Amino acid sequence: MKIITFGEVMLRLAPAGYGRIVQTDSFNVTLAGAEANVAVDLANMGMDTVYVTKLPENEVGQLVVNGIRKYGVDTSMIVRGGERTGTFYLEKGASQRGSKVIYDRKYSAIAMADGSEFDWERIFSGADWFHLSGITPALGENVAQICIDACKEAKKQGVKISCDLNYRKNLWDRDTCNRVMKEICKYVDVCIANEEDAYDVFGVSADDSDIEGGVLSAEGYKKVADRLMDMFPFEKVAITLRESISASVNNWSAVLCDKDAMYSSRKYTINIVDRVGGGDSFAAGLIYSLTNGYDNQKAIEFATAASCLKHTIEGDFNLISVKEAEDLMNGSGNGRVKR
Amino acid sequence: MKIITFGEVMLRLAPAGYGRIVQTDSFNVTLAGAEANVAVDLANMGMDTVYVTKLPENEVGQLVVNGIRKYGVDTSMIVRGGERTGTFYLEKGASQRGSKVIYDRKYSAIAMADGSEFDWERIFSGADWFHLSGITPALGENVAQICIDACKEAKKQGVKISCDLNYRKNLWDRDTCNRVMKEICKYVDVCIANEEDAYDVFGVSADDSDIEGGVLSAEGYKKVADRLMDMFPFEKVAITLRESISASVNNWSAVLCDKDAMYSSRKYTINIVDRVGGGDSFAAGLIYSLTNGYDNQKAIEFATAASCLKHTIEGDFNLISVKEAEDLMNGSGNGRVKR
Amino acid sequence: MKIITFGEVMLRLAPAGYGRIVQTDSFNVTLAGAEANVAVDLANMGMDTVYVTKLPENEVGQLVVNGIRKYGVDTSMIVRGGERTGTFYLEKGASQRGSKVIYDRKYSAIAMADGSEFDWERIFSGADWFHLSGITPALGENVAQICIDACKEAKKQGVKISCDLNYRKNLWDRDTCNRVMKEICKYVDVCIANEEDAYDVFGVSADDSDIEGGVLSAEGYKKVADRLMDMFPFEKVAITLRESISASVNNWSAVLCDKDAMYSSRKYTINIVDRVGGGDSFAAGLIYSLTNGYDNQKAIEFATAASCLKHTIEGDFNLISVKEAEDLMNGSGNGRVKR
Amino acid sequence: MKIITFGEVMLRLAPAGYGRIVQTDSFNVTLAGAEANVAVDLANMGMDTVYVTKLPENEVGQLVVNGIRKYGVDTSMIVRGGERTGTFYLEKGASQRGSKVIYDRKYSAIAMADGSEFDWERIFSGADWFHLSGITPALGENVAQICIDACKEAKKQGVKISCDLNYRKNLWDRDTCNRVMKEICKYVDVCIANEEDAYDVFGVSADDSDIEGGVLSAEGYKKVADRLMDMFPFEKVAITLRESISASVNNWSAVLCDKDAMYSSRKYTINIVDRVGGGDSFAAGLIYSLTNGYDNQKAIEFATAASCLKHTIEGDFNLISVKEAEDLMNGSGNGRVKR
Amino acid sequence: MKIITFGEVMLRLAPAGYGRIVQTDSFNVTLAGAEANVAVDLANMGMDTVYVTKLPENEVGQLVVNGIRKYGVDTSMIVRGGERTGTFYLEKGASQRGSKVIYDRKYSAIAMADGSEFDWERIFSGADWFHLSGITPALGENVAQICIDACKEAKKQGVKISCDLNYRKNLWDRDTCNRVMKEICKYVDVCIANEEDAYDVFGVSADDSDIEGGVLSAEGYKKVADRLMDMFPFEKVAITLRESISASVNNWSAVLCDKDAMYSSRKYTINIVDRVGGGDSFAAGLIYSLTNGYDNQKAIEFATAASCLKHTIEGDFNLISVKEAEDLMNGSGNGRVKR
Amino acid sequence: MKIITFGEVMLRLAPAGYGRIVQTDSFNVTLAGAEANVAVDLANMGMDTVYVTKLPENEVGQLVVNGIRKYGVDTSMIVRGGERTGTFYLEKGASQRGSKVIYDRKYSAIAMADGSEFDWERIFSGADWFHLSGITPALGENVAQICIDACKEAKKQGVKISCDLNYRKNLWDRDTCNRVMKEICKYVDVCIANEEDAYDVFGVSADDSDIEGGVLSAEGYKKVADRLMDMFPFEKVAITLRESISASVNNWSAVLCDKDAMYSSRKYTINIVDRVGGGDSFAAGLIYSLTNGYDNQKAIEFATAASCLKHTIEGDFNLISVKEAEDLMNGSGNGRVKR
Repeated sequence: MKIITFGEVMLRLAPAGYGRIVQTDSFNVTLAGAEANVAVDLANMGMDTVYVTKLPENEVGQLVVNGIRKYGVDTSMIVRGGERTGTFYLEKGASQRGSKVIYDRKYSAIAMADGSEFDWERIFSGADWFHLSGITPALGENVAQICIDACKEAKKQGVKISCDLNYRKNLWDRDTCNRVMKEICKYVDVCIANEEDAYDVFGVSADDSDIEGGVLSAEGYKKVADRLMDMFPFEKVAITLRESISASVNNWSAVLCDKDAMYSSRKYTINIVDRVGGGDSFAAGLIYSLTNGYDNQKAIEFATAASCLKHTIEGDFNLISVKEAEDLMNGSGNGRVKR
Repeated sequence: MKIITFGEVMLRLAPAGYGRIVQTDSFNVTLAGAEANVAVDLANMGMDTVYVTKLPENEVGQLVVNGIRKYGVDTSMIVRGGERTGTFYLEKGASQRGSKVIYDRKYSAIAMADGSEFDWERIFSGADWFHLSGITPALGENVAQICIDACKEAKKQGVKISCDLNYRKNLWDRDTCNRVMKEICKYVDVCIANEEDAYDVFGVSADDSDIEGGVLSAEGYKKVADRLMDMFPFEKVAITLRESISASVNNWSAVLCDKDAMYSSRKYTINIVDRVGGGDSFAAGLIYSLTNGYDNQKAIEFATAASCLKHTIEGDFNLISVKEAEDLMNGSGNGRVKR
Repeated sequence: MKIITFGEVMLRLAPAGYGRIVQTDSFNVTLAGAEANVAVDLANMGMDTVYVTKLPENEVGQLVVNGIRKYGVDTSMIVRGGERTGTFYLEKGASQRGSKVIYDRKYSAIAMADGSEFDWERIFSGADWFHLSGITPALGENVAQICIDACKEAKKQGVKISCDLNYRKNLWDRDTCNRVMKEICKYVDVCIANEEDAYDVFGVSADDSDIEGGVLSAEGYKKVADRLMDMFPFEKVAITLRESISASVNNWSAVLCDKDAMYSSRKYTINIVDRVGGGDSFAAGLIYSLTNGYDNQKAIEFATAASCLKHTIEGDFNLISVKEAEDLMNGSGNGRVKR
Repeated sequence: MKIITFGEVMLRLAPAGYGRIVQTDSFNVTLAGAEANVAVDLANMGMDTVYVTKLPENEVGQLVVNGIRKYGVDTSMIVRGGERTGTFYLEKGASQRGSKVIYDRKYSAIAMADGSEFDWERIFSGADWFHLSGITPALGENVAQICIDACKEAKKQGVKISCDLNYRKNLWDRDTCNRVMKEICKYVDVCIANEEDAYDVFGVSADDSDIEGGVLSAEGYKKVADRLMDMFPFEKVAITLRESISASVNNWSAVLCDKDAMYSSRKYTINIVDRVGGGDSFAAGLIYSLTNGYDNQKAIEFATAASCLKHTIEGDFNLISVKEAEDLMNGSGNGRVKR
Repeated sequence: MKIITFGEVMLRLAPAGYGRIVQTDSFNVTLAGAEANVAVDLANMGMDTVYVTKLPENEVGQLVVNGIRKYGVDTSMIVRGGERTGTFYLEKGASQRGSKVIYDRKYSAIAMADGSEFDWERIFSGADWFHLSGITPALGENVAQICIDACKEAKKQGVKISCDLNYRKNLWDRDTCNRVMKEICKYVDVCIANEEDAYDVFGVSADDSDIEGGVLSAEGYKKVADRLMDMFPFEKVAITLRESISASVNNWSAVLCDKDAMYSSRKYTINIVDRVGGGDSFAAGLIYSLTNGYDNQKAIEFATAASCLKHTIEGDFNLISVKEAEDLMNGSGNGRVKR
Repeated sequence: MKIITFGEVMLRLAPAGYGRIVQTDSFNVTLAGAEANVAVDLANMGMDTVYVTKLPENEVGQLVVNGIRKYGVDTSMIVRGGERTGTFYLEKGASQRGSKVIYDRKYSAIAMADGSEFDWERIFSGADWFHLSGITPALGENVAQICIDACKEAKKQGVKISCDLNYRKNLWDRDTCNRVMKEICKYVDVCIANEEDAYDVFGVSADDSDIEGGVLSAEGYKKVADRLMDMFPFEKVAITLRESISASVNNWSAVLCDKDAMYSSRKYTINIVDRVGGGDSFAAGLIYSLTNGYDNQKAIEFATAASCLKHTIEGDFNLISVKEAEDLMNGSGNGRVKR
């Protein structure tokens, strides 16, 4: 199984520990980007994965390429050129203080890329799955069009497509988002979202949940999924449920719906090490499950367990083995020392 | 509004993380001192703040000056001279092991300063508020007298005075403390304390609370405040309530009393990043509230929210914006990522 | 009181914080080894302690010697020679992800040592107590025999012997373990174990507890202790009870049994800083208690309090004072700042 | 004496030591920018200095403001707004490998600023000196115009102007540079350059020197200065002479010319700690000298000594005292320990 | 061009800076191994490179795989299994104190590997070049045989072979070395050595040089090369000439000989950042030159320039671009800042 | 041979690398003090060494005790008590910028110690050698008297005494120094000095050398030594000769004189890693030589070689083996890698 992902990968510049930007004199550098995270997570689980983006032909661009292929992702389809490697600053929060992201990604090589630079026919040759998120088309009309082109070619070659809605309010407005995502979702087979995304992107919501307040109702999710499946040709819709008790403790679970039923995962109470990339690790876990033929219940348990573990790992990448996710899924969550 | 604070600022030398001194080979250096903390916290919230102290005319003294003016505090009134910059060693505790402070502040420049070195008439020119704590007069009879001189001049110029009782048993004995603080409190408009302070300094206590045991009764605080307002011409008394479940988790709330009523804040359960400077950030939040015309309820909510956030920040300084405190005060404490 | 311990001490190579091995570019180095931990913990509490092992005559061996004598342990009986200093890699876990140990200790100097290299008659001269654990005889038949020789000589010189069963399934198989430990336990006066050890080593278990599931029944421990005391000439059996809620939070308590009764400690809920070495710090606390004439109840409270504090300290060594353990034992567990 | 500087200040992101970007996982953050360097250097020497730029109203912009006012520079004239804080990546070179700068400064707040945002009349009120460099007008036509506006207003208010030609080939082409700098230099009183700059900007060169080859002829510099003084109303021209033996060792000296004569400094052979900012520290030393009434010979010696010391200090800022530069100028360059 | 290398890659554990092992509490981890270095250096220069070894199937083995494929080396032929990943400790020297290597590589997975684990026929399929060093056969008779098998298969498939003699006296004795290397060198086309190697391995020496004393005679090298070409079917022999003035400064040059002539490179005086891996970077530079059709003079200049730059880079890997080596080769060694 | 040293040991707080104090946010902590350095250096070379001082009974005092006994020094004679552990701040210099020491040692436990606290009779029991420096009596009249008492008791017990004059102008004035050192030197057998010390302490100088200017005449040293031997009952006088070319490069040599002759060492040109403690490492090397029966020429070569190596090691302690010094003394100074 060969999986293609496409998007923007950025330098994530973060003070050590819980430091604030104004008090730091160094930044830890890791890589981050919704689809790059998914690519690395899948490669780390042994899948054959190709990541597509555009990066400058300089040392900073090379830092990014190296940081991805380190984990086994195929980077040979990355276009090199342009001026900027996108970056963002991250302050890790704790307790009542949420983590804070300050984007400096505008004018990046990928955000200013041209459709002609990507040979989708060649990229999808031999591929089985294509994953993208709602962040990539938000980078600009040019990138939105590239996403649509990619989806069309993927469909043409019989490649399955998954999309994580991932609404980012500071990248685009709701109307543009709605228009673009409606176009993209025509090609999508598996939709991944959280309740906020479904509402922000398509105006779809459950009746009885209060996201900001941290009161989430699992019951309403089936309805949300059903409405999405009515609007688009989705075979499956997966929704993650994060109850944010504080920046230090979250409850984490998810549901997977198909036309017939909803499958709910266990709920994990997590002492958070690093929460960013959690949603992407869920997407990766789900793609792993579906491309490995797991049934729906096992798929949602695996994806949730894998992404639960992500929250205990520094950086956006979910550096776990398949066995670790399976062990957790099968009950080994007591955190005893493994010798 | 121009705010003056006066006291000792020290190098805080701390092993990284939860390291003990005997196992470290480096110390993180931050600055700390009750009134310096208040000055920085207020400057960071945009207030015009002047910090007064005495520091040696060498690189270490300059490190301190630079570390304070970095955050926008006016350091032009700092007297330079003397031999030592006060220091203390800090081991950050966790769980059942409390943080530990080892002072090495004796013989510091400010502790050995002479009253003639401070031109209070000039310092208070144009000032609106003066804040000091019970730690400064504890540095010695000479410094106690400087504090009294400062209070007298402040009153003369119509400057409001706040004082955080802040009893430090290893700096002076109770009798001296009582004698000196009684003199100082004659000039104080706003008194800040925790229950221990009120008892240790003036023998005032609530009837039904057990501080050490972590059982705190909010009910008794009105009585403590009333007794203090009876003894001194305080307009307001603010009392912080810390329930220390462990070095890792605290409950935090506060009350503000005037002659008429008591206003209670929300109570926050905090996963602690760094608890030192928490009380000072409350004082800063309260001074911010009162100098910005907040009513009593909003004032106590703001001061408590601001100081709640301090517990999530490394170092003694509360590096938050007014907006962050307001957001928390208005309900955004779930710690979600802010993008 | 002079205490002898014997075993293997290793370099513990661990990424900073919660880092995984594949994402690190440096390892923090501390020292670790069940009996070395006990030796350092006891020396740190002021006891006269001698640690016996074999280490290469090179810079790495010297790093280890220095790291132990730093804390006051007598290292003059350490044999120098051989090729390797044992090492292990440690990933510190959090929440649902347990810590992970990857041993690289095979072929170490001590594992390949010869009995003739240790002059037990001289080593035990003037000694009062000998401590070893089940890890040391697991290093090989040669080392098992050295342990037995040591025990015989200790007994001959009237030295009390304590043994922590400490079963390590990846060092030996159960049959060998059973055979060797049966021989060693003939000489042991005080046996230390957790329920798993008792079962793994001697097939002794309580009827109604489920270790892996984190459901531990204190009631059954008396039975386990009684069975062990029936099998061997143990005067006392101490059993630690760890309820692992997650890698971040554990409940920790212990019982001490003699022929007549069982003494239970308080139970501590611990926010974990570093859990490795926790069991060894219990052994050290118990030996301290017993060599200082504490009664059974005080002994088990002291050992449990001391080892509770270990969980808040980085590294395998329990760098606390006797007073800190006593303070906790006497109720000061609220984690307030000590100035 | 009050000195105004205007330009762009950036985050300088550099791997530790001699690390290359592709091998780092963290960046040390310092601040850098030709005019900001001059401002900090002068403030550090006790001068009253104001730095003018535009920075985003976010945590990254605040990091920059704080990092400058830390050293005593007046930051109250900094305009806040815009999207990006300029950054650049720096690899420190050694021996045959030169340091490498990768700019990521395009689209920064100051590069996209509008002239109406700077109230030069107010900024220059009470000012004595204005310094800028050829880097600032290279940021774009809009910024070039702002520079010209500033110069005009400065001249109007009788403020002396110094300009460091500082040609940056990757920021603009030679023709634009020539056109803009010719306009600016009409207002300049003191011109600072190295031989390359004079040639790159105005086509002026000494006849017999070979810059790239490291063979520099002091003799030709008088001619270069004379030609520049013929072209523009410069009162003085200072030229720095760097003989780059390798990235680790440089010879460093300078000359100062007025219409009448040329004054040469001592030549220093420097073991380089950090060479970036060296030229700016020379400019600062020269401005210090001229605003403090030093004669030409003392001025060039002071500026050269101060900038020699800069090469021994990490970061772009020259964190030395006036006394240190004077001591070196007066012969104390043997590097003995000062106790 | 596809290049195969085979050998042992180890964790290089080194204190920061010039720290000694006994004073460190952390080790920087990089990867090292003669042939792995060559593989990474070549991949970094854009060559298609495959590295063959055996590594344990655990996190430490994975750290190594990731650290190599990060730089673009094909790691798909690495056999996974065995117990140990080889390690060594490195103290970086300075001035009169030479760097010190303490090996802990015995019993590693590759040292205990079996010939049947490597499918050389498949590995060499499509390959053009095979490189190994004298270190690999020194790991044991089994590994020596694997090397010979590999050489035979390479020859069979028409693959060119280069061998760096690289004598390591602590890995084997001279007689075994001589016997094994004589067998291997039967298949070698390009021999790389320093004078010591030629003497230590085959007893071949120049008449008039004194290696240890740092007095090296270039004249004698032609003779050494000629003798080696007489003994073996080498087409070319390259010899590096290191004059070690101190651990901080070395002179570095090389010669390349074929049957007809000797080609000498420029000599570089290097301020050393990290000297380990210098010889391997020469081998890589030479292989790059020869596989890219450089003539002998250009080849030796390129290899020497590339390896000169290696000495300025931390770690064993030569993280430079082809352009950087070419620029140096063409004269740009003055270390000026590149913007 | 058992060696006693007595003095003050301090925390040395230094920014990393060449950082200045005003730009650091952490201090590396090592230990330093003339006699403590000598004690550690000797213990590290295998000598039986006892260090005597007074240190507070707190975590900081314990950090110091542990840091010394780590290297094998007997710390059992250290008196515990008092308030302060002396500290000093160190900025490491480079090139023209000399290292800078800022003392914060006043009021330390040892500086305020009372003579009755040291039982010299017991301390010198079984001792062979006593070493102190001119820094210790400079701490105050009380400490000067303790030094004299110690010397008297040492002499009484037949213990040899060495003294390093070590003049520190900021600790005492020349008259007091002269008076006290004259008294102490009555008991001294081996005097160690540099030319400055001899002049500063006793007004003795060579005629034709210029210390500050770095022009040192070896010829005059015999005269200085002779004059010192005339004034005091010194058997031997050793004088170190430092030519400080810059803070980065020093020439280092020494002479040893007895009544009959002068023995000169080789001269080393050193690329400096850390120069502080260099003189103490010479004293330690000399004491090692003399207590191990080296003849005068070998003694001065060994002491100079040992102290040459110290300059390549971070911190005040000379962490080398006897063999390393011997190897250098015997010619191995080319800094080649040792495998």
